[in-house]
Amino acid sequence: MIYNQNDIENLETRFRANLINSLGGFKSVVLIGTKSLQGNENLGLFSSLFHIGANPAYCGFIIRPNEEKQNTLGNIVNTGNFTINHILPEFYKQAHQCSAKYDEGISEFKKTGFTPQYIDLIEAPFVEESNIKFACELVQRINIELNGTTLVIGKIIKIIAPESCIQNDGLIDLEEAGSITCSGLDSYHQTNKIGRLSYAKVDKEIKEL
Amino acid sequence: MIYNQNDIENLETRFRANLINSLGGFKSVVLIGTKSLQGNENLGLFSSLFHIGANPAYCGFIIRPNEEKQNTLGNIVNTGNFTINHILPEFYKQAHQCSAKYDEGISEFKKTGFTPQYIDLIEAPFVEESNIKFACELVQRINIELNGTTLVIGKIIKIIAPESCIQNDGLIDLEEAGSITCSGLDSYHQTNKIGRLSYAKVDKEIKEL
Repeated sequence: MIYNQNDIENLETRFRANLINSLGGFKSVVLIGTKSLQGNENLGLFSSLFHIGANPAYCGFIIRPNEEKQNTLGNIVNTGNFTINHILPEFYKQAHQCSAKYDEGISEFKKTGFTPQYIDLIEAPFVEESNIKFACELVQRINIELNGTTLVIGKIIKIIAPESCIQNDGLIDLEEAGSITCSGLDSYHQTNKIGRLSYAKVDKEIKEL
Repeated sequence: MIYNQNDIENLETRFRANLINSLGGFKSVVLIGTKSLQGNENLGLFSSLFHIGANPAYCGFIIRPNEEKQNTLGNIVNTGNFTINHILPEFYKQAHQCSAKYDEGISEFKKTGFTPQYIDLIEAPFVEESNIKFACELVQRINIELNGTTLVIGKIIKIIAPESCIQNDGLIDLEEAGSITCSGLDSYHQTNKIGRLSYAKVDKEIKEL
């Protein structure tokens, strides 16, 4: 099947949303926890998280066009911090429910049954049920004027992961940890390892590690 | 295991690279095809592709700090277009080899055995062996000054995918298509579907589709 530019523009809205959201491949899917200045907790589902750098440790994600109120964007801008929490198969439906449009000030933690967890001095709540989670402080916000979305860049300031899943060279075994992936807007998947490969060099054959 | 900010900063470089690259969860992994003004083909491996919008259809990815020469960044800036190609299990080692640092002007297609494919008037080469692929035109380039990386935003102008994998509502069944996912810098995975969920609404129970 081939879709040209005109075809893409003329697709029915929901069909196009499903097609374009799945086109890029499997995605990270995480719950982002924040707290408003008024003290209300918020938990949102995001599938656009990406790696920006390891040293300093930076990651980014995209927030849809939205008013800055007591929501993920408003809370991050106002408090400067947020948590990112992986999703396990046993609570993927609860996690998906966090994408519903609850009224301002309503906590998705309460509505979906997740337990807010406060660790050290991080103001934003973690998800207690997640086994891999990390906290970020806001370092840059970029408005993408093309379509009104916002790129939030965070510096990773605390990491929590099961010791048994951290390999000797630092790789977190996400499959062992049970973290899931998603495709499109609503399809969730577990993984099966194919292999881990040696560092690629010119004129040297790749080996399985 | 808990890593605080100081711990993260003091980790051994390679350990930190593996840890931070795997921390965000499973990722899209794709081959990006470009062509230089001099006519040399380039094929690079990227795992930072993310969705920005469905209408217009935009995606983005991060390129490491790099000179603009006959490489992915230089070619995109000079020609204004690129292709994104999914990876199948049968050629994941070849795809990984595309991350080796070949000299300027050397084609990863030739070195790793992929077949460049030209479709209609798109200047950038697709990967013939890929079964899901799409072409983008450059619409914005954002320099992330924090660490010298570049965010490339593309508008999706052509999509090619097996008809049998496109569901009635537009979702591409990536698992059926055989697309793989990755974690960290070098770990590759296939997927097993957990479920597809109904659109989340306040006070309505999520259903499996």
